[in-house]
Amino acid sequence: MPAPDLDERPMARAVELAARGLGTTSPNPVVGSVLVAPDGTVVGEGWHERAGGPHAEVNALAAAGDRARGATAYVTLEPCNHTGRTGPCAQALLRAGVARVVYAVPDPGAVEGGGADTLRAAGVEVLAGVLAPQAERVNEAWLVSARSGRPHVLWKFAATLDGRSAAADGTSRWISSAASREEVHDLRRRVDAVVAGSGTVLADDPHLTARAADGTPSGRQPLRVVLDRRGRVPAGARVLDDAAPTLVSRAGTPAELLAELRGRGVVSVLLEGGPTLAGAFLAAGLVDRVVAYVAPTLLGAGTAALAGTGVTTITDAIGLDVDDVSVVGGDVRVSGRPRR
Amino acid sequence: MPAPDLDERPMARAVELAARGLGTTSPNPVVGSVLVAPDGTVVGEGWHERAGGPHAEVNALAAAGDRARGATAYVTLEPCNHTGRTGPCAQALLRAGVARVVYAVPDPGAVEGGGADTLRAAGVEVLAGVLAPQAERVNEAWLVSARSGRPHVLWKFAATLDGRSAAADGTSRWISSAASREEVHDLRRRVDAVVAGSGTVLADDPHLTARAADGTPSGRQPLRVVLDRRGRVPAGARVLDDAAPTLVSRAGTPAELLAELRGRGVVSVLLEGGPTLAGAFLAAGLVDRVVAYVAPTLLGAGTAALAGTGVTTITDAIGLDVDDVSVVGGDVRVSGRPRR
Repeated sequence: MPAPDLDERPMARAVELAARGLGTTSPNPVVGSVLVAPDGTVVGEGWHERAGGPHAEVNALAAAGDRARGATAYVTLEPCNHTGRTGPCAQALLRAGVARVVYAVPDPGAVEGGGADTLRAAGVEVLAGVLAPQAERVNEAWLVSARSGRPHVLWKFAATLDGRSAAADGTSRWISSAASREEVHDLRRRVDAVVAGSGTVLADDPHLTARAADGTPSGRQPLRVVLDRRGRVPAGARVLDDAAPTLVSRAGTPAELLAELRGRGVVSVLLEGGPTLAGAFLAAGLVDRVVAYVAPTLLGAGTAALAGTGVTTITDAIGLDVDDVSVVGGDVRVSGRPRR
Repeated sequence: MPAPDLDERPMARAVELAARGLGTTSPNPVVGSVLVAPDGTVVGEGWHERAGGPHAEVNALAAAGDRARGATAYVTLEPCNHTGRTGPCAQALLRAGVARVVYAVPDPGAVEGGGADTLRAAGVEVLAGVLAPQAERVNEAWLVSARSGRPHVLWKFAATLDGRSAAADGTSRWISSAASREEVHDLRRRVDAVVAGSGTVLADDPHLTARAADGTPSGRQPLRVVLDRRGRVPAGARVLDDAAPTLVSRAGTPAELLAELRGRGVVSVLLEGGPTLAGAFLAAGLVDRVVAYVAPTLLGAGTAALAGTGVTTITDAIGLDVDDVSVVGGDVRVSGRPRR
């Protein structure tokens, strides 16, 4: 049996491969797989490329052909055990003669789970949990959604170092750097839905599309969602154009909105605006990740980046478990998960 | 003549040595010096340890003794040319037979400047500008003060990720991490004066001393300054105790306060609170460096970290030239200089 660190290198590669599927596999997870022969040679790689397409293991087995026999299969998610649009991966791994299966994260699904048991029962050595944090991270939206029964919610905001998302006169273009704005368009391409409140639509008339640097819609477009309980959004709003589908929701609470989106097959939501809507989601405990783009500028007046959380004293502040602090185009990007 | 990069290593060491004087040399600059023999051996090191004590070059020459003859002297600041409390360093270097002098930053002083000319006139090879940015940074307070004729002002603030320095009920302990608070006590030990407004004194009753982890005053104490135009600070305020000297100023403007402090020999000021006082200094262009400790927490209500800058539109936002982003005890520390 290889030492644990020998298992980490191919698993790290499998995580890389999984990430290639971000934005095209929903409502499925992203999964990567690497097949390694007993002598250490990588004999096959694969990832789940799109919903309805072959699973990662199947792609890796196809790449390996006969060399899969006796190999170790590294998979970022426990191999599935059920027959869905594609056959069960556990059976495919057995048929190919794989001797050992190493996976990172157990499959949380009641129907899909159990692949590990099937493999063990057939005499295959199975090891779980290798690079689980990394594999969790790449698949965070799907895993959180599978476990919680609602879409994963990422709240993204841009603010000055003193926490303002707009100046006193309402101007806000551009608080964040060009590189930060480009990242936000990438975020939009990866999620199923982008959500804004009617206040933001009325104030800023945002398009909420994923766009290229020249401003034209580019790549996969998420569902645009406007929470508009009072029917205030005018027919001419840019968010209602035909660049991408748009849902105007009359949902009364964040939970109700997420249930509605879940009913439409939405696994991942990017919450974009504004401060009060974000506050309502945070107050309801319905934000799974916060990504802040903090610009190195100071205003001293203007719109606060966040309002209406209901927090009134410092000991109730909503703490984040930060897993990344990076400089992006001069902005400081802070990413973390709210503590429950 | 050595290649430029050969000059950088001893100069980097000289910058390190200079930093050891931070907090004990005011109103003098911090200076470091390294003497290197023609064969590359370091034959002497020194730094300016305290106001009134020997200059860095003199300490390095004393360490080197006869081995200074023919050596190269690396100095972070142009050797002085005048006779103050100690003799002129340019003469000391000549007497010791130093063959070459490399310095980083020219001396901005009208009286002290000119050491390079004296050395060149005596036949010594002189090179300026090596690692000038690093040497500028370590001596920033003194250089800015020497060039501007007023104390250097560092505005430090702690805030949540959404820019709040206190919760809605006024509570603010502890927004920032223990490590960040410890750094602030180090900052206080390094400056000549700490400044707060009467509003902050009334709201938080701060002590404004440099303290150890157990809360007791520790190390060099800066002058505590309270800007209290209306005489609102009560006699029982903690800032008025005998742990350190305190100045209650009636100055009407930040510029007036800085002139008053300059008159007392203050070279460096740490501006600590609150939002309105910081806004007044920023509006007057009298902040030389901003150090923000951004805690990874969210409030959604409470006191804004900054107010009263007079900025009303996004294009007038006060941009910072950021030179450091670090994680300190879980907080994100952003340090930079306001653009003029």
